[in-house]
Amino acid sequence: MIRIKNARVMPMTNGTEISFGEVWTDGDKISFVGAPSSEQLKTTVFEREIDAGGNIVMPSFKNAHTHSAMTFLRSYADDLPLQEWLFNKIFPMEAKLTGEHIYWLTKLAILEYLTTGVTASFDMYFEPDAYIKANIESGFRTVLCGSISGGAENLDRLDGYMKKFNGMDPLISYRLGFHAEYTASRELMEGMGEMAKKYRMPVSMHTSETEKEVRECIEKYGKTPTELFDSMGIYDFGGAGFHCVHMTENDLSIFREKGVYAVTCPGSNVKLASGIAPISKMLDMGIKVGIGTDGPSSNNCLDMFREMFLMTALQKVSLKDAAACPAEKVLEAATVGSAHAMGLDDCDVLAEGKQADIIIIDLEQPNMQPVNAPANNIVYSGSKQNVKLTMCAGKVLYEDGKFSIGAEPSEIYAKANEIINSMKE
Amino acid sequence: MIRIKNARVMPMTNGTEISFGEVWTDGDKISFVGAPSSEQLKTTVFEREIDAGGNIVMPSFKNAHTHSAMTFLRSYADDLPLQEWLFNKIFPMEAKLTGEHIYWLTKLAILEYLTTGVTASFDMYFEPDAYIKANIESGFRTVLCGSISGGAENLDRLDGYMKKFNGMDPLISYRLGFHAEYTASRELMEGMGEMAKKYRMPVSMHTSETEKEVRECIEKYGKTPTELFDSMGIYDFGGAGFHCVHMTENDLSIFREKGVYAVTCPGSNVKLASGIAPISKMLDMGIKVGIGTDGPSSNNCLDMFREMFLMTALQKVSLKDAAACPAEKVLEAATVGSAHAMGLDDCDVLAEGKQADIIIIDLEQPNMQPVNAPANNIVYSGSKQNVKLTMCAGKVLYEDGKFSIGAEPSEIYAKANEIINSMKE
Repeated sequence: MIRIKNARVMPMTNGTEISFGEVWTDGDKISFVGAPSSEQLKTTVFEREIDAGGNIVMPSFKNAHTHSAMTFLRSYADDLPLQEWLFNKIFPMEAKLTGEHIYWLTKLAILEYLTTGVTASFDMYFEPDAYIKANIESGFRTVLCGSISGGAENLDRLDGYMKKFNGMDPLISYRLGFHAEYTASRELMEGMGEMAKKYRMPVSMHTSETEKEVRECIEKYGKTPTELFDSMGIYDFGGAGFHCVHMTENDLSIFREKGVYAVTCPGSNVKLASGIAPISKMLDMGIKVGIGTDGPSSNNCLDMFREMFLMTALQKVSLKDAAACPAEKVLEAATVGSAHAMGLDDCDVLAEGKQADIIIIDLEQPNMQPVNAPANNIVYSGSKQNVKLTMCAGKVLYEDGKFSIGAEPSEIYAKANEIINSMKE
Repeated sequence: MIRIKNARVMPMTNGTEISFGEVWTDGDKISFVGAPSSEQLKTTVFEREIDAGGNIVMPSFKNAHTHSAMTFLRSYADDLPLQEWLFNKIFPMEAKLTGEHIYWLTKLAILEYLTTGVTASFDMYFEPDAYIKANIESGFRTVLCGSISGGAENLDRLDGYMKKFNGMDPLISYRLGFHAEYTASRELMEGMGEMAKKYRMPVSMHTSETEKEVRECIEKYGKTPTELFDSMGIYDFGGAGFHCVHMTENDLSIFREKGVYAVTCPGSNVKLASGIAPISKMLDMGIKVGIGTDGPSSNNCLDMFREMFLMTALQKVSLKDAAACPAEKVLEAATVGSAHAMGLDDCDVLAEGKQADIIIIDLEQPNMQPVNAPANNIVYSGSKQNVKLTMCAGKVLYEDGKFSIGAEPSEIYAKANEIINSMKE
């Protein structure tokens, strides 16, 4: 058992309410949250005691949309129009990727996630075996999201993945999903609707990221992507839409009625000039919201603090309302909302029996002082420098700038450079 | 002399061009930049050699608009409409400030500046004596900007400050300025025009931050703030406008013709819902641009990395052009542009004879790997965690997370909390 004591505990079970106390873990689970009695303390044996020093202990962040292994394309193609970026720069390089590449590039992403307090990713990419190996070896939690595209013949592959990867390891799960409307045939999407029914499971995909995507979908099907998916039964058991920038009133109503999560990726959406998602409106309507970084070639970093500031700041400026999207809503999205969007219902808050996915936020840094409102500090002035400790499934993977993921960062950096340099040749 | 060796040197003298080499300092100045000969190395005695480990050595960032001592109001009043924020929350607390408060609150800001690679601030606030004391003691460079408001009787005070503070210390300078059109009388502004002429010096002020400000100025004077200032001769020797969000075509033409710097504060502008400054257009027109954080009660942090990302990302999303405002322009604004806007012409780039205001950017962190384009990495994925060393006037004030400013951070944090808590009573 691990004891984290002397903490400002923000369990995210009641907004951003904070109380002084402790969090204990036992194996991969949280065994106690609160102020222990002297009797409890006397009868409990801890393998380690961590003095939080009055800092914040809270649930870790979850990254509800990403393509982790795209680390190799960080800063490879910036300041380009979207089409040129994607077709001339990204796709040709991705075509060269091997499983071995994915393995190392994923480890690089995991290092970065840990520095920003993220312990789980909802990932869409290639080579799931290599990807999973990197996650399990690192002790990092991941939910793979189906990302098939093209014709209905690919549905069998997805079905195979569902059977192969679910249940293989406590850190790994696989969820139904496909890439996007604009890369899928009608038959594939109809098949996804049937698969939702078969598994009684949510389905997730990129949706309404760009104006072009929505316009062309309406031209082709007479429906927005959300309306199309809904008409095919794809959302009958919920799901998550990634990006959700260009949403109609009817799209939003469907999301609310079907309990579909909107996963916002504000960093990517501004850098690629896609637009600003109507997050405030979604929250007002009661639509559930999570946050994702998207992949590091479009963002370019995997930094939940940047995403959190952008989530609220872009609402404020676009609605001309400095009161829009308050800090509490942002923190709920980055923890509880993202966890639920990924199906990680046991990783959402700090409470007995939940998974021990925990971070300590260092307030003893100039950007967090004075301590007027710690939750606001996290959203409005917090940064990676404030992540003192990141624990996933009860294991400390990052502490005071040092990683414990079974591989040296220097080796991972060298491999990542080697991979991209060999591709450029 | 200090030798920084084994570096990717980005002097900012030729865009973001980088070459492997060294930077030497002698006292407060740079004495050498480049690849030294073995003869040079043999004949030079160094008091310290810093191995940059292949990391980037570049000019420090300059914060071209701030109110440093407002650290005490960080997270004190978030998610509020602008008027309520300012009149009900900020002004009543500021009325309680003493010189002693300003002294400690400024030191807190300096700590934060150093973590983000900033070595100089262009500051507008009260109690200049206490403010200057905090800066000199810390070894931090500052340019005070006149911030008078009200009637013409206050011009004498500004005149007194100009004489008192310029030349008192190499780290300190004072520039002509006033708060803003909406807090100044016509007579004060006309007096500023005369003072510009008298000193043959630029004049700086808040300008066109909000729609309301511009609208009310037009109602009162029949001119925009920029037109009004120009008509009074205020810009006859240049100047800097802080914020510059709501600018007309004619305003921009005046800025270009008079060589006035636009100092953008994107973090504050989005958080307070003021709008998005037309930075791309300014750059296209050849208007000179600097970057400021604004004060920590509106931002809420003093983080140049956040400002740099926002500067470009907000242009991209508002213009629907992912190619807008490329990384190089952002880095130029944060270094050369900001320095020149503040009158720090000898602190702009790495070159022999320039002030030794230097930072080392750590690439050996997951968010900077692989190293495809280091300059882009700084703008698009860089963060405070990458600031390995901050040197001001030849002195290392921050290195590997440790401060050398003559005061302990813990004491500064305690004082800051004491100050705000006593005010809340």
